[in-house]
Amino acid sequence: MTEKPFNVGIIGLGTVGLGVVDFLTRNKELITRRVGREVRISGICAKNKNKKRNLGLSQFRWVQDPHTFSNDKDTDAVVEVIGGDGEPAKSIIEKSLLNNKHVVTANKALIAHHGHYLALLAEEQQVSLNFEAAVAGGIPILKTLREALCGNDISRIYGVINGTCNYILTEMENEEQDYSEVFKKAQDLGFVEKDPSLDVGGIDTAHKISILASLAFGSRINFDNVLIKGIGSICLLDIKNADSMGYKVKLLGLATKSNAGISQEVEPCLVPKASLFGKLEGGTNMVMVEGNFVGKTHYIGPGAGAGPTASSIVSDLIDIARGNTCSTFGQRASELHISHHVAEDLSTSFYLRFLLTDKPGTLAQLAGILGKYNISINRMRQLHHQDENAPVLIVTHPTKKNSLKSAIEEIKLLDICKNEPVYIKIEDL
Amino acid sequence: MTEKPFNVGIIGLGTVGLGVVDFLTRNKELITRRVGREVRISGICAKNKNKKRNLGLSQFRWVQDPHTFSNDKDTDAVVEVIGGDGEPAKSIIEKSLLNNKHVVTANKALIAHHGHYLALLAEEQQVSLNFEAAVAGGIPILKTLREALCGNDISRIYGVINGTCNYILTEMENEEQDYSEVFKKAQDLGFVEKDPSLDVGGIDTAHKISILASLAFGSRINFDNVLIKGIGSICLLDIKNADSMGYKVKLLGLATKSNAGISQEVEPCLVPKASLFGKLEGGTNMVMVEGNFVGKTHYIGPGAGAGPTASSIVSDLIDIARGNTCSTFGQRASELHISHHVAEDLSTSFYLRFLLTDKPGTLAQLAGILGKYNISINRMRQLHHQDENAPVLIVTHPTKKNSLKSAIEEIKLLDICKNEPVYIKIEDL
Repeated sequence: MTEKPFNVGIIGLGTVGLGVVDFLTRNKELITRRVGREVRISGICAKNKNKKRNLGLSQFRWVQDPHTFSNDKDTDAVVEVIGGDGEPAKSIIEKSLLNNKHVVTANKALIAHHGHYLALLAEEQQVSLNFEAAVAGGIPILKTLREALCGNDISRIYGVINGTCNYILTEMENEEQDYSEVFKKAQDLGFVEKDPSLDVGGIDTAHKISILASLAFGSRINFDNVLIKGIGSICLLDIKNADSMGYKVKLLGLATKSNAGISQEVEPCLVPKASLFGKLEGGTNMVMVEGNFVGKTHYIGPGAGAGPTASSIVSDLIDIARGNTCSTFGQRASELHISHHVAEDLSTSFYLRFLLTDKPGTLAQLAGILGKYNISINRMRQLHHQDENAPVLIVTHPTKKNSLKSAIEEIKLLDICKNEPVYIKIEDL
Repeated sequence: MTEKPFNVGIIGLGTVGLGVVDFLTRNKELITRRVGREVRISGICAKNKNKKRNLGLSQFRWVQDPHTFSNDKDTDAVVEVIGGDGEPAKSIIEKSLLNNKHVVTANKALIAHHGHYLALLAEEQQVSLNFEAAVAGGIPILKTLREALCGNDISRIYGVINGTCNYILTEMENEEQDYSEVFKKAQDLGFVEKDPSLDVGGIDTAHKISILASLAFGSRINFDNVLIKGIGSICLLDIKNADSMGYKVKLLGLATKSNAGISQEVEPCLVPKASLFGKLEGGTNMVMVEGNFVGKTHYIGPGAGAGPTASSIVSDLIDIARGNTCSTFGQRASELHISHHVAEDLSTSFYLRFLLTDKPGTLAQLAGILGKYNISINRMRQLHHQDENAPVLIVTHPTKKNSLKSAIEEIKLLDICKNEPVYIKIEDL
């Protein structure tokens, strides 16, 4: 052991920050042996020094100003685990990179919005900007894309990458409760972000799929072009019906590359019960990557929590401490191309739910509009009516989403249609 | 693009070698962009130049003597894909390392037997020795252990890592055919190694689990201490019975670390149908790694074939070309400790199958011996007799394997026992 320690300043002492401190402390000896040098905490920083925390911190240098580390001779890398896509996270990372400090962050929102700019900065300053913890918790999916599979021409990547949504969907099914009940329970358990639209609105998944797409396809990150649909319109009836047809409802982030360009989508999908994705319960995450030589590979693990998230952050730190550096997005940032972004328009089957007035001629009207848009019906069921109205469930033969959306817009205008129609893509993964 | 090409000599032009040539040729532009320099084939070599191959090779320098590359100024890395744990593979790797060439190999047998010696050599010469393709085909499991999860204290790693065995076991079930029939079919399809004991005897899995254990636990590789049991004694009756109890039969490689030391085993196990392992069909591989911070993670992908294997080899080459080097076993080879190896002696339930003479008192005798060894019976079934004899199936309550083996040895000596008794561990993964 001759090399000097690798010094890390940690900013943010919430669940994740404390997890990193705990990891670097408890596994210190092991890490030193594996890295060939000590990975040492040069200081810690949070808004409130006196907040009660479940970990002894008195042995560490307390830093009050989060910008201290970026000018600190005794710090090689800064860990930013405050979160949020604005200040102070952004300027902390900026200043640290400008002062030639390596940066490790778990901040998916920030990377989704400012990742390209920050990667350019890191490249100029010849330091690393790593964020394994930003996607899929403890699963080393970014390293897998940036290094292990990076020689493959990757055509598709998709995953269940928001544990909260998967918890809500599986809990609705297991407890036979409707969305609002389970959502409240998830909130009470602290599973939902302060702004719930991040989770259930699909935005968090969108942040993550934009990061995955950039690494997989070697394209400039483009969060603004992700088509986003959340899980708020899914009701227990949909889940039960999906089940009876052999499917589960999962919120998927999907990115595909074709000659036309790159498509990025977040949307609830029906996936076969018997598929790997169909088996995924609770907060577990799973990502599928398909490359032209490797074929299909799947990665499964805990999507959140102190331990798994800290594991990914420490993994980033170890890479840097070992001198294993790699461009932020797997190739020179200045050479990342802006790809033509397209809405994927493959034909797939859809599950539809309408609430229709229960009177003669209603189904004919509905079927007429579907037919006009060339949407052919595979299965249809009308359920017991509720008051005057009856839920009607339809599974279509493969059709383009654009046609479907047009048909739905027209059906919505009919007097007989009493709900915002629900459509869910069927993905036979 | 200013950096000079990274030059690779490829030795062996079977399925895997041709896969690597194909990969480096077809994905050349992509690789150059990702690596920042060209990964160039400096030459190719095989026993027979004139053998018919399904890939145009005339553009490459043909080298007749496989030792040429180790002295070749124009070669930075040697890819050894001849296979076999002896010559010429061993001396090719040795000479290449001694001449400061990086080495990438898919040779699990060689690494299992000589990995420590070769890692020491690589360390002395300050070059890389990588073998991602040696375990689990296209799944980047070695990189995951060596880098991504290497800060975790790993307690357990297990997997289905021999596609041939998994193909045979799933085919027996799906086609309701007995072992020998399916084995023959697998042989006809070219799925079985020349020496079948490598696959069905569990030796290939043992090579792989010894490599995984060394990387996971930071211990010196120790193939000789793997306890090995193959799938040759499994019959269709066992698979059907497992199914009726909610289990599948899988050949697992398992390694665990405890205070007592490291245990390494290869053995057929009953795993719950509904588990991830229970769902694994055909040639697909899966590995589970459990670390003290990350928790349980699973990795799934194709376990063999030209494309997936080439993907892992190219991944190793890209790491080296990028300058990302890491010790062969994830830490200094000279510091890898010899761990005390133990036979795992946790209590588990077992499935047992006996063929017993069908006459009064038989079951009493059997039960008596089990009782003497403190093995208590959870379920017992006697099936229709075959001639004079009847199969008896037992599921035990949790018991130590050593007690079970002693009991079986005693039962075997009885006149009433007409087969080599079969026992299969039940792993509630």
